[in-house]
Amino acid sequence: MRNIKITIEYDGTNYHGWQIQPNAITIQAAIQDALTKITKTQTQIIGAGRTDAGVHAAGQVANFHTHSQMSSTAFQKALNATLPRDIVIIDVEEVPPDFHARFSAVSRTYRYTILNRTYPSALLRNNAYFFPEPIDVQGADTACRSLVGVRDFSSFQRSGSERINPTCEIYECRCLREEDLVYFEIEADAFLRGMVRAIVGTFLKLNDKEDGINQLHKILNAQDRSAAGASAPPHGLSLLRVKY
Amino acid sequence: MRNIKITIEYDGTNYHGWQIQPNAITIQAAIQDALTKITKTQTQIIGAGRTDAGVHAAGQVANFHTHSQMSSTAFQKALNATLPRDIVIIDVEEVPPDFHARFSAVSRTYRYTILNRTYPSALLRNNAYFFPEPIDVQGADTACRSLVGVRDFSSFQRSGSERINPTCEIYECRCLREEDLVYFEIEADAFLRGMVRAIVGTFLKLNDKEDGINQLHKILNAQDRSAAGASAPPHGLSLLRVKY
Repeated sequence: MRNIKITIEYDGTNYHGWQIQPNAITIQAAIQDALTKITKTQTQIIGAGRTDAGVHAAGQVANFHTHSQMSSTAFQKALNATLPRDIVIIDVEEVPPDFHARFSAVSRTYRYTILNRTYPSALLRNNAYFFPEPIDVQGADTACRSLVGVRDFSSFQRSGSERINPTCEIYECRCLREEDLVYFEIEADAFLRGMVRAIVGTFLKLNDKEDGINQLHKILNAQDRSAAGASAPPHGLSLLRVKY
Repeated sequence: MRNIKITIEYDGTNYHGWQIQPNAITIQAAIQDALTKITKTQTQIIGAGRTDAGVHAAGQVANFHTHSQMSSTAFQKALNATLPRDIVIIDVEEVPPDFHARFSAVSRTYRYTILNRTYPSALLRNNAYFFPEPIDVQGADTACRSLVGVRDFSSFQRSGSERINPTCEIYECRCLREEDLVYFEIEADAFLRGMVRAIVGTFLKLNDKEDGINQLHKILNAQDRSAAGASAPPHGLSLLRVKY
């Protein structure tokens, strides 16, 4: 059987997240339905990251096995013609049989987008979190960089979804401003559930605190979700890319 | 009475255009309703340009007269708290009594956005027209610049909406590419109904023609709508700004 890797852009606004589940529209289900229609065979896909309801992706990756002899280009065209307009296949590639979108991934990069000005935006309403108080981007960026390395992120893990190993290695973490938009970008080997939104929510809570960076590390060391700030809302988050 | 100028950003996807009409949701109606709620007085607004159904605005301008003593900042906050999230007031300013959003305008600038690559975009699906064949941007830009000046644009006027004077002065017209996006930007003293979409549709029709620029001027000189190409769809169009 051939092993096909697809790269996916989606607007998560109208979906209950990536992962297939009964009685809810999900991205995975929509793509599997389209593949099943195209190949005329029930087809399952494996995703690199499970994005939550309302979270977007610029470069989610998935793979599936198929007997179909369609070319990569033909697969891309057929999928984009079949999928709803808020899910788009931006790349299709045949990969070796052992490629696994989830387990072969070396890192994932998430971006959280904040609209940081006194009034909201009509066009960005579903893709950036409107936060009107001025963000200290330089302070946040310093705090971001202090997170690089291997750490226990229990304090930033959604309650009820505890992983056996709550350790992640952050490869890169930064905060930057482009005009009215402030981005938090985090690249890591793995993420706990709700981790990016909990980190961003905590940054925003500590934004006007003088010793924010110390408080951040106190929260981290507490290894307790209740020590951290509320989660930032899902619509600011996007899975930017997955490296293999 | 005070005269208040507002600058508006909107996502036109879910509206039947700017202008108020019976039995249809319009931008003008939504803003008037919000103002009437806030000022507790029936309030009418005058818009600078009548955008069609599905057309967006980054900087539409309108004005209204009111006895309210609210500050500009308070008006902006109250309006943004009352309006649906796809309409945002980005600026409020008190202006002299004779300011008229439509008649005082010196120029309007429209931008038409095309996604020019082989696959569509989930995030831009309602804000850029997906056109997969490669666009000759340099050729289009030369043709654009040849439109500058005073001309009869009857050939690019929607049938059934003929204006007594079909003459417009184009101040600037250009075509440019930024990665996968191609923009047509047109600044003029006035626009006939459907004019930008008819011009862009004609450019796309002439895209692969060798003597495109000559054909464009033949169409222009015909002063007949049926000589031009089909209109480009509304969702690529945005009223960028209005100058006074």
